[in-house]
Amino acid sequence: MDEQNEKILLAHGAGGKLGHDLLDTVILPELANPILNELHDGAKLKVSGNIAFTTDSYVVKPLFFAGGDIGKLSVCGTVNDLSVTGAVPRFLSAAVIIEEGFPVADLKRIVRSVKETARAANVAIVTGDTKVVERGKGDAIYINTAGIGEIIPGTDISPTNVTGGMKIILSGYIGDHAACLLGERHGLNLGAALKSDCAPLNTLTAEMLSAVPDIAVMRDATRGGVAAVLNEIAVAAKVGILIDEEAIPVREEVRGVCDLLGFDVLQLANEGKLIAIVPAAKAETLLSVMRRNPLGQNAAIIGEVRDSPQGTVGLRTALKSIRVVDMPAADIVPRIC
Amino acid sequence: MDEQNEKILLAHGAGGKLGHDLLDTVILPELANPILNELHDGAKLKVSGNIAFTTDSYVVKPLFFAGGDIGKLSVCGTVNDLSVTGAVPRFLSAAVIIEEGFPVADLKRIVRSVKETARAANVAIVTGDTKVVERGKGDAIYINTAGIGEIIPGTDISPTNVTGGMKIILSGYIGDHAACLLGERHGLNLGAALKSDCAPLNTLTAEMLSAVPDIAVMRDATRGGVAAVLNEIAVAAKVGILIDEEAIPVREEVRGVCDLLGFDVLQLANEGKLIAIVPAAKAETLLSVMRRNPLGQNAAIIGEVRDSPQGTVGLRTALKSIRVVDMPAADIVPRIC
Repeated sequence: MDEQNEKILLAHGAGGKLGHDLLDTVILPELANPILNELHDGAKLKVSGNIAFTTDSYVVKPLFFAGGDIGKLSVCGTVNDLSVTGAVPRFLSAAVIIEEGFPVADLKRIVRSVKETARAANVAIVTGDTKVVERGKGDAIYINTAGIGEIIPGTDISPTNVTGGMKIILSGYIGDHAACLLGERHGLNLGAALKSDCAPLNTLTAEMLSAVPDIAVMRDATRGGVAAVLNEIAVAAKVGILIDEEAIPVREEVRGVCDLLGFDVLQLANEGKLIAIVPAAKAETLLSVMRRNPLGQNAAIIGEVRDSPQGTVGLRTALKSIRVVDMPAADIVPRIC
Repeated sequence: MDEQNEKILLAHGAGGKLGHDLLDTVILPELANPILNELHDGAKLKVSGNIAFTTDSYVVKPLFFAGGDIGKLSVCGTVNDLSVTGAVPRFLSAAVIIEEGFPVADLKRIVRSVKETARAANVAIVTGDTKVVERGKGDAIYINTAGIGEIIPGTDISPTNVTGGMKIILSGYIGDHAACLLGERHGLNLGAALKSDCAPLNTLTAEMLSAVPDIAVMRDATRGGVAAVLNEIAVAAKVGILIDEEAIPVREEVRGVCDLLGFDVLQLANEGKLIAIVPAAKAETLLSVMRRNPLGQNAAIIGEVRDSPQGTVGLRTALKSIRVVDMPAADIVPRIC
């Protein structure tokens, strides 16, 4: 597996000798740890307390983009889903579906990115799987990760905790991830300022929960963006949500992409941003804690929860009119994560 | 989502309104349970003791086959990986990558199969994900499941426990799954007798471990078949393995497919068969326990462990010569699971 131009073959996914070679030369040199090295059908783990469990598949296109790649994304996404559940992420699985002919060099680059991101997030990849499909039956590589985290005692994160009067905090600039990918897909020259915000949020959420254990709910604003997250919470909690357009951090470059391509920044996917909803009396405390972490340095209170109209999200515009923020329908960006 | 001819669209995977519709009309009506219904980023679970964690992606072709389908397979495969680790399977994730244009009716059929198999195996689907890729960038549907099981106290399943003198037990007829799929792909008329052996093995493994807690190792013989499993164990345990051709249960129909298409039955994938290696003094006890369960009714002692030659597997043929059973290389069946 050392050749510059080596390609993945169907047999690499068939459970025999070539699959073992791939493990030994590409996967284990990067991801080795005592649990993974056992190469059991299942990894044996010690956990304490209640756990959180989540999964996502990653089909992002292009595979490599400013600020990240599918490997980094596949670790961050699952780490973040565990983090916003109030858990400390501990163990991840990684399963790849590779298209025949995929360059081994690209696979190595992705595996290295998985390793580096897992190290940054302090999680171990403990089990995995490799499948190979025929040329034209996939698209380079798809990655699934599932993750297990230990729920931090005393936390109770649920949208149904949300009640009127609570404040809504956003952890920073929105739309960077989707705007970056849209820019790359459309060949826009966006300059160095715009890159994906892809990052593991577990240090941020741990600090937030340590300072304010009674956070009602946290959600990372991935597919469907802030619009989807707030609509889901409004429906689940049977509340109204009102946010202020002027309070929402948006980079000029992201506004430019939205204007050019006709997207609503509130519907754009983020991969390193979260929404937290918290009792009003704790909002300033939480905000200052978040701003001390680089991942939350641009955090802002962007709105508040109302008793009504239930199940709806409103945006107070710069002109002080209010428009409804809908759940994104069909015209959002495919294969963004 | 009621129309007979409804197709999956890219927007069903984009995290917005259509994705929610798909959840509400196709997924939740079948899979609903209190944990899944929370629709959190992560499921919150109570587990006790040490846990096992595993993942596999399923890319089987065709999607529907005699004895099962990709939905049943995706539950059985992960349940079985947990079971042979010495765990009681408890919680599964399910993540689908669907090709644009896939019939919603087929998705419903698969989801129903997931439900029925999960119920039979006594596991809950607690978290999931849906991605949609463009036509020609996938192949109908791929499913990833990850699973969490509770390790049965007192068990210690590991290939490194295997030592010379131990007996090798196979739980029943081999090759049924791969031969069935090969038959369907090649349009062979195999009759009703041959179908996939796809089944959840957790009742069998629980009964085995209850009767004989000192089972050294168990492995389900999936991709690469009995040949791959025994080679992996021989290498990991630094032992020799010798099996008897005449002791290995193989159906006539499976022999026929192997003769016709040139496959070695030892390399064919199974989805409801396991190998157990056990101290010789416990072999007959274990065998009789296995035979009382329908999933092990044709179990047989097929060979034994030797101190040498280390890392090799030999087959004593009907003619009493010994041939080496290699780790399958490149010529095995793609997309068998």
